[in-house]
Amino acid sequence: MFEATFQTFADSAAPALGTARLKLLREELERRGLDGFLVPRADAHQNEYVPPCDERLAWLTGFTGSAGVALVLRDEAAIVVDGRYTLQAAAQVDTASFEVVPLAQTSPDRWLERHLPAGAHFGYDPWLTTVEGEQKLRRAAAAAGAVLVAVDGNPLDAVWIDRPAAPLAPVTLRDPALAGESAPEKIGRVQAALAEQKLDALVLSDPHAVAWTFNIRGGDVNFTPLPLSWALVPRAGRPTLFVDGRKLSNAAREALAQFAEIAEPVLLERAVEMVAAGGAVIQLDQATAPALLAARVEAAGGKVSSGLSPVALMQAAKNAAELAGMRAAHLRDGAALTRFLAWFDAEAPAGRLTEIDAVCALETFRRDTGALKDISFPSISGAGPNGAIVHYRVSEATNRTIRPDELFLIDSGAQYEDGTTDVTRTLVVGTASAEMRDRFTRVLKGHIGIARAVFPLGTMGAQLDSFARQHLWAAGLDFDHGTGHGVGAYLSVHEGPARLAKVGTVALARGMVLSNEPGYYKAGAYGIRLENLEIVVDGPDVAGGERPLLAFEALTLAPFDRRGIDPALLTPDEAAWIDAYHARVREAVGPLVDAATRLWLDAATAPLAE
Amino acid sequence: MFEATFQTFADSAAPALGTARLKLLREELERRGLDGFLVPRADAHQNEYVPPCDERLAWLTGFTGSAGVALVLRDEAAIVVDGRYTLQAAAQVDTASFEVVPLAQTSPDRWLERHLPAGAHFGYDPWLTTVEGEQKLRRAAAAAGAVLVAVDGNPLDAVWIDRPAAPLAPVTLRDPALAGESAPEKIGRVQAALAEQKLDALVLSDPHAVAWTFNIRGGDVNFTPLPLSWALVPRAGRPTLFVDGRKLSNAAREALAQFAEIAEPVLLERAVEMVAAGGAVIQLDQATAPALLAARVEAAGGKVSSGLSPVALMQAAKNAAELAGMRAAHLRDGAALTRFLAWFDAEAPAGRLTEIDAVCALETFRRDTGALKDISFPSISGAGPNGAIVHYRVSEATNRTIRPDELFLIDSGAQYEDGTTDVTRTLVVGTASAEMRDRFTRVLKGHIGIARAVFPLGTMGAQLDSFARQHLWAAGLDFDHGTGHGVGAYLSVHEGPARLAKVGTVALARGMVLSNEPGYYKAGAYGIRLENLEIVVDGPDVAGGERPLLAFEALTLAPFDRRGIDPALLTPDEAAWIDAYHARVREAVGPLVDAATRLWLDAATAPLAE
Repeated sequence: MFEATFQTFADSAAPALGTARLKLLREELERRGLDGFLVPRADAHQNEYVPPCDERLAWLTGFTGSAGVALVLRDEAAIVVDGRYTLQAAAQVDTASFEVVPLAQTSPDRWLERHLPAGAHFGYDPWLTTVEGEQKLRRAAAAAGAVLVAVDGNPLDAVWIDRPAAPLAPVTLRDPALAGESAPEKIGRVQAALAEQKLDALVLSDPHAVAWTFNIRGGDVNFTPLPLSWALVPRAGRPTLFVDGRKLSNAAREALAQFAEIAEPVLLERAVEMVAAGGAVIQLDQATAPALLAARVEAAGGKVSSGLSPVALMQAAKNAAELAGMRAAHLRDGAALTRFLAWFDAEAPAGRLTEIDAVCALETFRRDTGALKDISFPSISGAGPNGAIVHYRVSEATNRTIRPDELFLIDSGAQYEDGTTDVTRTLVVGTASAEMRDRFTRVLKGHIGIARAVFPLGTMGAQLDSFARQHLWAAGLDFDHGTGHGVGAYLSVHEGPARLAKVGTVALARGMVLSNEPGYYKAGAYGIRLENLEIVVDGPDVAGGERPLLAFEALTLAPFDRRGIDPALLTPDEAAWIDAYHARVREAVGPLVDAATRLWLDAATAPLAE
Repeated sequence: MFEATFQTFADSAAPALGTARLKLLREELERRGLDGFLVPRADAHQNEYVPPCDERLAWLTGFTGSAGVALVLRDEAAIVVDGRYTLQAAAQVDTASFEVVPLAQTSPDRWLERHLPAGAHFGYDPWLTTVEGEQKLRRAAAAAGAVLVAVDGNPLDAVWIDRPAAPLAPVTLRDPALAGESAPEKIGRVQAALAEQKLDALVLSDPHAVAWTFNIRGGDVNFTPLPLSWALVPRAGRPTLFVDGRKLSNAAREALAQFAEIAEPVLLERAVEMVAAGGAVIQLDQATAPALLAARVEAAGGKVSSGLSPVALMQAAKNAAELAGMRAAHLRDGAALTRFLAWFDAEAPAGRLTEIDAVCALETFRRDTGALKDISFPSISGAGPNGAIVHYRVSEATNRTIRPDELFLIDSGAQYEDGTTDVTRTLVVGTASAEMRDRFTRVLKGHIGIARAVFPLGTMGAQLDSFARQHLWAAGLDFDHGTGHGVGAYLSVHEGPARLAKVGTVALARGMVLSNEPGYYKAGAYGIRLENLEIVVDGPDVAGGERPLLAFEALTLAPFDRRGIDPALLTPDEAAWIDAYHARVREAVGPLVDAATRLWLDAATAPLAE
């Protein structure tokens, strides 16, 4: 009936290939005089989603998770993965060739420290490693008495004969009405920030930052409209955009050439060296810049300033046009999600729907809007115990039929040209137990605690995080992830630098968009997560108030499942918040859906007291 | 009628002396070939309260505040003080000789960077400067092209002819029933921590840590029963206590000699060098260790490990005996404070009491217990607008008559042998305005938010701080200090490392004692602060709970002024908390006070609804 076009559910497991490929890599290492090599799941931009040509870890080991690192030595090899992936890695790799090492027990550098033979030459690709990563490797190699070698050309690429070509999706110019600020204006603001911080130049190594600054988008990776690219912004004068020329139409090239130089990415290294040669101070983005660039800056006589790129804060605080786009996208997405919720309620009680069915249906309703460009991440669709796996991704092997009296958690998002969405609802199929309703309501109270928060300018996300947890704490419960992350405007669904989390030390600012997604997970039983995106807006103007206030405005428009709520656990203020939010959803989304869905919506958004 | 014996109210201001002394110092600097010198308000332990012989800054400049630093050059001199002290410094120093520099505008190292002539030799005393302080000086000197010189012998001491002798208060052994753990047991735990952290030795530079570890107390500074002393704890074998032998009775010396070597402080430097000579890793306490010791360790071939001393966390988590002592001290102190509150209520309405009268009365009631050893800090006694000055200290010049329809804030504490107290109450004289009651109630709601918090093991103070602020935030208000600090057991009233503050990154642990003191300050009008000390205790055992919980138990026992509370702003849970707390105060304190006070207490602790 329904089909997913942006997400696949295939299980891949071909451990034997890994063993053969490991042999090929070791032969190449020997040819180059290396005793070992590091294969991270990373591209040169430390992207969350990487193009197929950068899936080196998957090619070598068979492991397809989104994070991990292989450590290859002459006589042994390991793959270090975090807690999400230990089971998956063990199933996908040949454990006779690769030891699967849980990150919580042993970090890659600790493993190296213990396993690298003294005198060994251990290689790493300085394009795929950050300065911080390189420092850890250096310490580990020193402790083992080994030599760390930055390779010139990745030896794995030399033996990867069927390696896919680099993606060449066309670069598109962002509609000025959606961007709200021209690229030259943005570049002017970035240059003013460089002057203020006494920096001579800035390298944009994060393609999201390039996309925002130059008002361009692309399609080089899944789920995020990125053009893989770099930029070099001097304190004064024209910036240079490093992008494969084949991605540029004549129109795009002409438009960009109005305010920027355009060069092939292969010239980046040389351009950075030329700026550095005069002793310039060049800022490299700590989180994404390759160690190679830092080495080039220093070798050429320049100074590296690492830290938060000035673009990060500018990009995080959306302007009025971007917020208008985000609001339009969320209204459209809310209508699609509401259609899904109504459909689900009609179908699920029969007990035949599967997790994959739900993903396909939801994507179909989103495609039906005619505006869907992509999903913003692979949907998390977990019934019963699968809902308790925080980063669950359904596959044909794990696909579960959604049964009555279970909870079903669906966390999904869309990319529309006017905005990016991310929303989680937890749905009751049949009847929820008293415990489920208690937990659901505590999570909801936490969600409302964030949604209703009012706080002074300068407040960091870390200061609000506990508002989402306190009702779980009171029952001896908690959840082991942050409460919220930033979200881009038709960019990454996970955008820095502000977070609602105990490590969120960036001050919240007007126009930021953050998720509000407390949860509760009972292993082997069920999972609950309730997520809206929120805009940071001006707070109320209180008589007698002394400090400018900020607050949140919910962007997401879709009902929470009333069957999960125990109204006796809500304060009158909390119940009023839910009723007002539901009334807003009904009024906004109602006119956009068919009559049957509209009827369902009226019931789903009725006041709690009814 | 009443008298304060532990606190004085004299105003000191003799700016002319400073100018003469500056001249003496400059002559001495010239004799030593120095072009400048740093005079911090510090002793070699970075103590909060320093003995008179270490009041170099006050001797030189006339400034008597608790924090500041003078920078003396050939032709100019500055004193850098924080926001609390800019007015006081301007009044106390000769501004023709010393430029008063607000810290918020210019840090001492920034001032040096701008004012040090190239090539100048600038001296500092490495006993009075921490490693971090020294690094800042080094960077500033390098930026100015000047030479930084660690002096051997403080040049100011050479010209301070009437310098007081170092204090020689007797060292007392702590009653084992109050300590709850023997010194050898504590040393064993410290040594186990050193082994675990692969450290060869630990220098205790903080006399509070020495006092706790060796179960001793002293009387060398005001307000804190410190014996000025040092200790060197090797990973194995007997520790050495460095203390002036004249402070030790034969009995004390014999008892300590059972498990420790005893040496004169002048031998510390050599002892540290001897341990370091073998390449040992020696931990120095980041916050208090003099830069001199770090230099000696490195010069002798050892390695410095800086960081949080293992003693800090052990000392912070009080054992059962220490908590029993703290509870007894707070019950006694609560009775004294209740007598004061009843007396104040009878006297204040006549409009003749002054801030100093209040301090004297409260100290007298505390002395009447027969157990008062000292006050734990100079009382903050602020009527009307003086209450809005967060660190106000009343003097004869500022002493204000407490008028009807004003708020009166009194923050005070006591040192008893069984425990240290710190309590703030804000009292309504006559009638509080609606705004005052609104603010008072919001502060109280924040206080209750902390008092009632329940949180999982591992939660940091930073995660709770906002619970104290959210009701002020909602009205566009806030307070500019942390919500709480640690408190010692017959030790410092300001004890690390845990804090309730946005910078409180240490996990709270069972047995810690912290203040809970939100406030609100309206400049020029009134100040409100409501402070209890709280013990971190096991939280409730909730059915179905999955995580061990912690909670707070109020140590302080004294009524909050019901006339400040607007019950309409309280939730039923908050009102119930106040009523239950007041009932507990009435039951505990009632039997300890005279009949008249008892009558007053019954009324003061009546349920809010009555």
